[in-house]
Amino acid sequence: MAKKVKVNLGKRSYDILIGPGTLKSLRREVLKLKKKQVVIITDVHVGGLYASHVKKSLKGLACHVITMPAGEKYKTLYAASAIYDKLIALKLNRDGLIIALGGGVIGDLAGFAAATYMRGVDIIQVPTSLLAMVDAAIGGKTAVDHKKGKNLIGVFHQPRLVIADVNVLNTLPPMEFKNGLAEVLKYGFIKDPQIVKMIASNPKVNSAFLEKIVSLCAKIKAEVVSKDERESTGYRMILNFGHTIGHAVEALGGYNRIKHGEAVGFGMAAASLIGLKLRMINKQNFEKILFLIARLKLPIQLNYKADAILKALQLDKKARSGKIRFVLPKKIGQVVVRDNVPDQVILSALKGLGCK
Amino acid sequence: MAKKVKVNLGKRSYDILIGPGTLKSLRREVLKLKKKQVVIITDVHVGGLYASHVKKSLKGLACHVITMPAGEKYKTLYAASAIYDKLIALKLNRDGLIIALGGGVIGDLAGFAAATYMRGVDIIQVPTSLLAMVDAAIGGKTAVDHKKGKNLIGVFHQPRLVIADVNVLNTLPPMEFKNGLAEVLKYGFIKDPQIVKMIASNPKVNSAFLEKIVSLCAKIKAEVVSKDERESTGYRMILNFGHTIGHAVEALGGYNRIKHGEAVGFGMAAASLIGLKLRMINKQNFEKILFLIARLKLPIQLNYKADAILKALQLDKKARSGKIRFVLPKKIGQVVVRDNVPDQVILSALKGLGCK
Repeated sequence: MAKKVKVNLGKRSYDILIGPGTLKSLRREVLKLKKKQVVIITDVHVGGLYASHVKKSLKGLACHVITMPAGEKYKTLYAASAIYDKLIALKLNRDGLIIALGGGVIGDLAGFAAATYMRGVDIIQVPTSLLAMVDAAIGGKTAVDHKKGKNLIGVFHQPRLVIADVNVLNTLPPMEFKNGLAEVLKYGFIKDPQIVKMIASNPKVNSAFLEKIVSLCAKIKAEVVSKDERESTGYRMILNFGHTIGHAVEALGGYNRIKHGEAVGFGMAAASLIGLKLRMINKQNFEKILFLIARLKLPIQLNYKADAILKALQLDKKARSGKIRFVLPKKIGQVVVRDNVPDQVILSALKGLGCK
Repeated sequence: MAKKVKVNLGKRSYDILIGPGTLKSLRREVLKLKKKQVVIITDVHVGGLYASHVKKSLKGLACHVITMPAGEKYKTLYAASAIYDKLIALKLNRDGLIIALGGGVIGDLAGFAAATYMRGVDIIQVPTSLLAMVDAAIGGKTAVDHKKGKNLIGVFHQPRLVIADVNVLNTLPPMEFKNGLAEVLKYGFIKDPQIVKMIASNPKVNSAFLEKIVSLCAKIKAEVVSKDERESTGYRMILNFGHTIGHAVEALGGYNRIKHGEAVGFGMAAASLIGLKLRMINKQNFEKILFLIARLKLPIQLNYKADAILKALQLDKKARSGKIRFVLPKKIGQVVVRDNVPDQVILSALKGLGCK
């Protein structure tokens, strides 16, 4: 029943195992990698639910658990430093293995620690949130935050394997599930109308449905990462649909006023309205996109200040290559990247969506 | 007059420009890389001598200098964190460039910061010590130290260019020059009898001589790195001749009792005596090696405790792949890697060189 999606990166290729119960194959996979020493990095929430179970499943292997506090505010260099101390105390060597067991924060943090400990040790990503399964755990982006911005300190470090066991989503809080659905919808909008149809069909959320949507999303992410691992050609940029304004809104909210999925939902709505104003997408498709975002109870209206959002975008612009880059929809399943959207169009789109 | 050595790593290939005055080509090289924003990272000693000169030479480019305290004890995650703060304050973006201007400590630290800032920005290494010119600046090893050991936190991040201007060696303290000569001699012992002859011939240390020996060493390092970038095949291990016992002696001395070059000198002597005891090298070659080490006023006798060195080796062993790996000489210009040297042979070699 489980599905396997491959990320093609030459010698650094790896599989994503998706389905209910795929976590059961962890021990076999660890042995395939010839690992004898394993350190599981998790947080208090996920660790409380799954760490001892996972550790027990690795019987016969030297296995330790490092439990970190939960939440984005602990995704810091300081937390990474605490992990180094523990890895050194555990005498993990270069042939050892780290398993990241958690959501996006743990994936990024443990990924960064694995990438930088002794110039890189292997990692298996075991994402436990929908968001991490379809996004963060795939593609090798690792990072910690800096007080001036998210993910400013990081490296690329591909995992050796990703195990997405959709059964663990049973314990995911509904808010976090919604957060993940925003990214699922994003994959539909940028590449695959089938995903959009599945979400639109008012589906029964069971393990078959989850396996299917996680697989479809993972396939898109894997394809994009295989073609543009380090965002050097610009192709990987399409994954940022909804994230240009989304990131600005998150930053303005100090990263706690609004969830990532909500910010991306609003960002997709805004990018679509920009697309409509620039006559890149027709009214019917625009309305369908907004309807679907709203149906997931993600915001399509926010009463932020339009000026403040534009300013945040321009700051972000300076942090990149000099221009604000937008991913704009052409139709459902197709987007284009543009870096010449006039400020007036941005402001007018924001004001059309509740901003002042 | 200048020499160019290439490190062949596919898309990540780069040149090493060696000779008196090669630093003058820095601006041209920065423009070739299409860089507009440059941050020079240096330390108080080297910065005081060269930073304003280098900055002035980059006229027309946005250029800032970050000056760090000097010395291995500042090669920490804390120092890297201070660099991130400054890079962010300077709004260095992903298209920017870092120039590491200094010895091995600055090269490693600035290299680590460049590797991890925004998931990697480009770096040009401008080594200012003989040791850094022939070793640290080439090959992409970056790291900071942990209180439990050197270079425990790091990544591989190849530079875009290395500029070894031998004129800057005029201001290098004699002790540091000797430190570098130990590594030069190492290259001769592992690969190139010509280097050994040059050192043995009581040469006049002028810029032609320096250009020649730095080029010969850089060529060896470049060849080894091109074949085994990440120490995965084991070939890169030959660069560790003298470093197995060298590292143990440094660790026992708390990294301040003995200089790296001295520790490597003694380590090469010890590895050679082990080689003699195992009948891998003949007496004549062994004596020649020891004579040459001693002639550079590097120690071939140390009154450390042999037991303590062995224990440090075994700790280091646990931190690697389970066995103590030695690089042993077969003749001058050829070494082999062995991981089955009996403890008794190690102890007896150490005791033969002044240890108790």
